[in-house]
Amino acid sequence: MRDSFEVRDTDAAGRIGRLSVPRAGVTVETPALLPVVNPNRQTVAPSRLASEFGAEILITNSYIIYKSDDVREQALDVGLHELLDFDGAIMTDSGSFQLAEYGEISVDTEEILQFQHDIGSDIGTPVDIPTPPDVPREQAEAELATTQARLEFAETVDVGDMLVNAPVQGSTYPDLRKAAAEHAYSTSLDVFPVGAVVPLMNGYRFDDMVDAVAAAKDGLGADAPVHLFGAGHPMMFALAVALGCDLFDSAAYALYARDGRYLTVRGTKHFDELDYFPCSCPVCAEHTPEDLEQVSNKERERLLAEHNLHVSFEEIRTIKQAIRRGTLMELVETRARSHPAMLDGYRAMLAHADLLEESDPSSKDAFFYLSGESAYRPEVVRHHKRLSRLSPEGHVLLTEAGSSDNYDESWRLLPPFGPFPMALRETYPLTAEVPTRIDDEAYRQAVVGVQKLVAANPETEFTVAHKGWPADIVAGLPDGVEIVDLESMDKNANETEETHD
Amino acid sequence: MRDSFEVRDTDAAGRIGRLSVPRAGVTVETPALLPVVNPNRQTVAPSRLASEFGAEILITNSYIIYKSDDVREQALDVGLHELLDFDGAIMTDSGSFQLAEYGEISVDTEEILQFQHDIGSDIGTPVDIPTPPDVPREQAEAELATTQARLEFAETVDVGDMLVNAPVQGSTYPDLRKAAAEHAYSTSLDVFPVGAVVPLMNGYRFDDMVDAVAAAKDGLGADAPVHLFGAGHPMMFALAVALGCDLFDSAAYALYARDGRYLTVRGTKHFDELDYFPCSCPVCAEHTPEDLEQVSNKERERLLAEHNLHVSFEEIRTIKQAIRRGTLMELVETRARSHPAMLDGYRAMLAHADLLEESDPSSKDAFFYLSGESAYRPEVVRHHKRLSRLSPEGHVLLTEAGSSDNYDESWRLLPPFGPFPMALRETYPLTAEVPTRIDDEAYRQAVVGVQKLVAANPETEFTVAHKGWPADIVAGLPDGVEIVDLESMDKNANETEETHD
Repeated sequence: MRDSFEVRDTDAAGRIGRLSVPRAGVTVETPALLPVVNPNRQTVAPSRLASEFGAEILITNSYIIYKSDDVREQALDVGLHELLDFDGAIMTDSGSFQLAEYGEISVDTEEILQFQHDIGSDIGTPVDIPTPPDVPREQAEAELATTQARLEFAETVDVGDMLVNAPVQGSTYPDLRKAAAEHAYSTSLDVFPVGAVVPLMNGYRFDDMVDAVAAAKDGLGADAPVHLFGAGHPMMFALAVALGCDLFDSAAYALYARDGRYLTVRGTKHFDELDYFPCSCPVCAEHTPEDLEQVSNKERERLLAEHNLHVSFEEIRTIKQAIRRGTLMELVETRARSHPAMLDGYRAMLAHADLLEESDPSSKDAFFYLSGESAYRPEVVRHHKRLSRLSPEGHVLLTEAGSSDNYDESWRLLPPFGPFPMALRETYPLTAEVPTRIDDEAYRQAVVGVQKLVAANPETEFTVAHKGWPADIVAGLPDGVEIVDLESMDKNANETEETHD
Repeated sequence: MRDSFEVRDTDAAGRIGRLSVPRAGVTVETPALLPVVNPNRQTVAPSRLASEFGAEILITNSYIIYKSDDVREQALDVGLHELLDFDGAIMTDSGSFQLAEYGEISVDTEEILQFQHDIGSDIGTPVDIPTPPDVPREQAEAELATTQARLEFAETVDVGDMLVNAPVQGSTYPDLRKAAAEHAYSTSLDVFPVGAVVPLMNGYRFDDMVDAVAAAKDGLGADAPVHLFGAGHPMMFALAVALGCDLFDSAAYALYARDGRYLTVRGTKHFDELDYFPCSCPVCAEHTPEDLEQVSNKERERLLAEHNLHVSFEEIRTIKQAIRRGTLMELVETRARSHPAMLDGYRAMLAHADLLEESDPSSKDAFFYLSGESAYRPEVVRHHKRLSRLSPEGHVLLTEAGSSDNYDESWRLLPPFGPFPMALRETYPLTAEVPTRIDDEAYRQAVVGVQKLVAANPETEFTVAHKGWPADIVAGLPDGVEIVDLESMDKNANETEETHD
């Protein structure tokens, strides 16, 4: 066990955890959002980030401090905490971003780690190589080898009780991401940023981002705190948390504000295009978009940054609340409707349902069926696995309604889960709330459930009694299964009755 | 034209409108939320409803005032506006709710309308019969006849420039709702509440609610302001607005607060079950759920009521903003994921896509494909109608990629819309953003598009070039259409290339 991170509650692959940051003497609750603080330009003072927004941890760039003579001396003199006037945990980046942007930086890992230690950082970062997406495999491999060597070197630097990041690279090669994660996890380093996903997020390639994160998670132990590096848009926090990310950093709140951009969980708006504020944070409750046109540019930037922070921290609280209640997947369902690319991200995540299922609790409040995507949730996958292990005998009725003494056993049939013994009907997820108007995805997964049960029990005879399933769905039921349509039976019964009138 | 209501912007059947309320001397922007104010117990003072929450109109119950000797005299003496200390518009209910609850009330329409006039109400209500859902048809018809007689009588009462509600009843019989709406619209009355839908909403029968509203809308002119009477949960405002409702009233904000219940657009929570506030309104930004446990019951009730109001007015603003940008359907998509019953409501609404299409603008920002339900949006229905009117000639290629000189015309093929001439590709909705991972609903609607075009052009020869559509989808393409799978061609081309290496 890594003793700096403790997982408290889980839902899908998401978790509420506690990251102990010994140097700061604080414990940070995750999922956590780290506002990025530019030491040269503070849009919102760090002390306000703590008191008004609840920030327990922030991130600043040690390379920027290092390169600025004034700030460097001050930081070495009084320390980061006093420099920024912030009592919580402070993570520092190393200049890897600048390396990626400008091709070179003037420090190496030892120097910058030592510097981070000397200015009082609580979580430092070596100089890794953030390999962008879609590079040739050879480049991704070569750069990953460099990153790995630096992580190994970082282990040897004496930084006291400062925690150290072990970035996971590998570009868009899932096998490299996984290998990178396994290697990083094998070091004695502490926190695991999934690196260089910003280009994927900027390009709205949320499905590729999901694949990169899933591959990294696959190579990390469950006790590894995972940082989705550079992810600051609240639109995708829920998706990323459900995949198992614990830390986010937002420069977006300030950078977007500078451009007049207004964050929402349903995407970004420019304040120019807002006639009404779709928010009730203290900024939006007290101002109208017209007000914002009247104020100075600087005041507008500050107000937008505050709104952006409010909505971002609100989303973190919404996610934590969802994890506590076991409704994180329902939240992800909702957030997936912000953009077609987010829907792609959600669909990509469901393709990793096996990964989510490993940590998904066996019981929660209630399963809400909310879209065709719900049919592929980890709970359905798990139920299908279970069906392969159940062995009813004799002649078994799988029915959407009632039961019958004419069979050895009567099981319930419920889209999207498929069949289950009556005894399980009060257990999660079979207490699911499903819509009256069922979609084909739900039917299709119910058929998969029947297929699993039938395949596992070749000696058993099955009758499926369904309520008006579409013909092409019924056609997918296994050969040899007797099929009864309860609705056409009802209809016939009614017609007979009418004839008798 | 009814001159008290002006429609400014539309999206689906939703609209931003202006309701002129002459007696109050104000114009109310719709969609509007009317907080219900109990004259005997004000959780939040009406003056604060205006100044802090932006309420332009509220509703109170004239029957409660009438029945209380003290309040009645005061209301008659100083008038409702001074009694409540509210400068905006005030609507009054008549006691119909009490009639429905307790079986009788001690006033008739003339008396209560006159009383509403005398106390200075701006919009009054006759005593209609709120027939509950699922009653025998005979009862629904008989009660509707009574309601209609009262509306006709109400026309004859001299109430000066007070506007008068014309409630639309009819229980769960769509044809009665429509007839009731046609009758109400034929009177000289002003505002059209869809009545007695509260039992449907309380029972989470949002699909039945949608059918009732759609039937009522079908019988009303586009210039009729529609009030969804008793609808106060922000979860369903977007759905109701998209159907064409303009006014909502919320007693929920106060009643729920009394029970410790906390409203969100994703459902109701009890404050006991909240570990984090999924909101950043001024109440939630300044307090934690733990704080709320510490304060007095009265203080907690007030804080919860304020939160409930903030989130409700926030949703009204969010809806208006969506209408302005033409993204109301995208908002409804999102809200439909709050509960399986809301998904049923959305699916029921899409079954009325023809109704929505009538008022849906022909051009908006961008169509976002966000779920299998998106395939049935009014824009798709409209495009399919258009396909029946287009007449390409010769041999026409309908293709998901590129074009070809081997055909007389090359058309684009785009799920869920189906085929369209290249010339339309920069026009709404064909500029749609669709996910990379396409679902069967989108394919199926694309096939419907092909079917419409082929059926309308029996002399034309068609070739469909698709990218790896599932076999059962391809099987739905019309007979006689030539079919090419571009993906298997690509694969073959690659294989050929590899062989040549």
